[in-house]
Amino acid sequence: MTPSIDPAALDASDPLARFREAFVRPGEIIYLCGHSLGAAPKIAVERMAQVAGEEWARSLVRGWNTHDWIGAARRVGDRIAPLIGAGEGEVIVADSTSANLFKLTVAALQARPERPVVLAMADEFPTDLYVLEGVVRTVPGARLEVGDEAWIQARLGSDVAVAVSSHVDYRAAAVRDMVAMNRAAHAAGALMLWDLSHSAGGPGVDLTATGSDLAVGCGYKYLNGGPGAPGYLYVARRHQAALASPLQGWMGHAAPFAFDTTYRPAAGIARFACGTPPILSLSAMECGVALAAEAGADAIAAKTEALLALFLDRVGDALGLVSPSAGPRGGHVAFRHPDAYAIVQALIARGVIGDFRAPDVMRFGFSPLPLSFAEAAAAADMLVEVVSTRAYDDPTYRVRAQVT
Amino acid sequence: MTPSIDPAALDASDPLARFREAFVRPGEIIYLCGHSLGAAPKIAVERMAQVAGEEWARSLVRGWNTHDWIGAARRVGDRIAPLIGAGEGEVIVADSTSANLFKLTVAALQARPERPVVLAMADEFPTDLYVLEGVVRTVPGARLEVGDEAWIQARLGSDVAVAVSSHVDYRAAAVRDMVAMNRAAHAAGALMLWDLSHSAGGPGVDLTATGSDLAVGCGYKYLNGGPGAPGYLYVARRHQAALASPLQGWMGHAAPFAFDTTYRPAAGIARFACGTPPILSLSAMECGVALAAEAGADAIAAKTEALLALFLDRVGDALGLVSPSAGPRGGHVAFRHPDAYAIVQALIARGVIGDFRAPDVMRFGFSPLPLSFAEAAAAADMLVEVVSTRAYDDPTYRVRAQVT
Repeated sequence: MTPSIDPAALDASDPLARFREAFVRPGEIIYLCGHSLGAAPKIAVERMAQVAGEEWARSLVRGWNTHDWIGAARRVGDRIAPLIGAGEGEVIVADSTSANLFKLTVAALQARPERPVVLAMADEFPTDLYVLEGVVRTVPGARLEVGDEAWIQARLGSDVAVAVSSHVDYRAAAVRDMVAMNRAAHAAGALMLWDLSHSAGGPGVDLTATGSDLAVGCGYKYLNGGPGAPGYLYVARRHQAALASPLQGWMGHAAPFAFDTTYRPAAGIARFACGTPPILSLSAMECGVALAAEAGADAIAAKTEALLALFLDRVGDALGLVSPSAGPRGGHVAFRHPDAYAIVQALIARGVIGDFRAPDVMRFGFSPLPLSFAEAAAAADMLVEVVSTRAYDDPTYRVRAQVT
Repeated sequence: MTPSIDPAALDASDPLARFREAFVRPGEIIYLCGHSLGAAPKIAVERMAQVAGEEWARSLVRGWNTHDWIGAARRVGDRIAPLIGAGEGEVIVADSTSANLFKLTVAALQARPERPVVLAMADEFPTDLYVLEGVVRTVPGARLEVGDEAWIQARLGSDVAVAVSSHVDYRAAAVRDMVAMNRAAHAAGALMLWDLSHSAGGPGVDLTATGSDLAVGCGYKYLNGGPGAPGYLYVARRHQAALASPLQGWMGHAAPFAFDTTYRPAAGIARFACGTPPILSLSAMECGVALAAEAGADAIAAKTEALLALFLDRVGDALGLVSPSAGPRGGHVAFRHPDAYAIVQALIARGVIGDFRAPDVMRFGFSPLPLSFAEAAAAADMLVEVVSTRAYDDPTYRVRAQVT
């Protein structure tokens, strides 16, 4: 098989090529785990020195006002908004993805007390299922039912408050039909809640065009926000007044510093904030989000797809692809192979960083800002070589360490 | 009135004097807001450069293992433990103080389903009341009743699941009688949940000696963990198996990376974690906690009290002190004055940073590691001068900005 796509030509005409230099390049590796933890923007490293060494150390408590830490959660939310097709005032950074999923699911149940059912994808990212199990354990009468995409669309009925799904499946990178799912939910009088963790800053998503209600997402994947970067959440403006977070912290209060003894939720998206946000982590996240915002969602999505196409063109058909062979699809590709673990280890030993998901899946993610087409091509060639020569068939590649 | 305590002598014999140099000194100010946002340890500033510029940027996703980010929440919790009289495996860093209060209060209600009542202090820090209002709005049948310390002790009965109180009152710095409150709760078959935000790293607290059940606290005050540092929570080992967090994120799972589809809570304190922790903020917090751990809870509490005694000795009796005039007391002092806002502004203009709490309270906090006795004395003298000369009586000091 002769590769039909020339990486050098793609790099030469890549409108996002200049962003590669915006990231720290960690030596001689090809990093294909941006779907797990994104690369570090140079400005994020500089910003940490500034926030800790200048803002915190010298402004101290005055930093909440003088450096507008107090506005950061809204400000970063508004910068994420165009990356996911949301409007100003529809996104806020807060807590973790898991906590945000809890907040919005409970809010949906509370807004529809006559509807006890939460639906979810059976093969959802496990922590989302854990959170939903916790939701129905907390809201009496509520119950969780799981199935596949078609089953959810058929199951949506008058007893369903909310259905939850990732936009992009974390394992195979399949993309859900948001328009169809939203329509089915709305026809049943239910809300649809999307997890965008594998969408924002990568393959992209348009919440407004798809008529979406609610969403959550994480900051540390394609948004390059840093390890454990805070999560964000989206509530369509039309739903904001009718929904309320069960986690009523002061950052969600209409007047946080009035020190009223009674909770009054803020008028807009701020009501879904809770406690004091982690400013250091949030400031790093702002840098990653700013780069993505500057690059633009459309250009990012286009390069993501072009990187995937290039990679798969070179890998060919023989490797057990479980991801869609054409778009729409997520920003990573997954292969099923009985020796997936050893193959990933053999690649890591050769400087190509992918990841493994039990029991037999290997994933390679294509973070569009730090990656070049030449890197994607070289990684594909290395994968083909490792598999075709059985270079992975070495006992050292079978020792299992903790996998994150 | 002649001051009876010599600050120079106290500084000369201060066993914690060497810790002053461990903090960035922000120019010519005396910082008495460590009860709101603690000062920046120099090692925290250095650590941010290391975590962002080296660990994140160069190890990327491998950092979860190679730099033990995955163990940070437990590790920092174990370092906080001796500062609050807790044992190993009884404390974990997670989420925000508000989210942790939600988790533990709901857990207490769920563990005692026949007991619908949550008790709290009527003058509690407002966000704690907001959170508890959210709890009883989420757990049907639950209700919140508030009163003062004596009322709570009398009210504790067979319908009460949990009572919540700050150990140190955020406004006046009064200290609750933990032993009496815990005893009253236990006699009623209820749990007692303490907010230690104004205790840990300052006046101190001993959860084990007082027979405490549950606690939450924040990392950004006397623990010097950075703006919006994560919160922590404590669950006495004897209660851990019987309580479960409603926020069931993967970090609380028995095997987070097995990707089971069903939630199984971790065996110990880890079950109260939720989502992926913000590693940058958590790493800064670790530095502040490490300094406090090195200094030791007893020495910290002793210096806190000595700073307060010195300050109040010089301020004298004329200023409307609403804090206890002797220990046990918190790490700050509060005065009530009709011109409190202007006085605080006049002091800030003179380099003494205290804070104001509506409607008429000014607070001065004594963070024991970065502060000298000479600074406490100078601040007291400045306060006396500003009040006695009515230097605060200037229109520029009455313009209200947002107060954090």
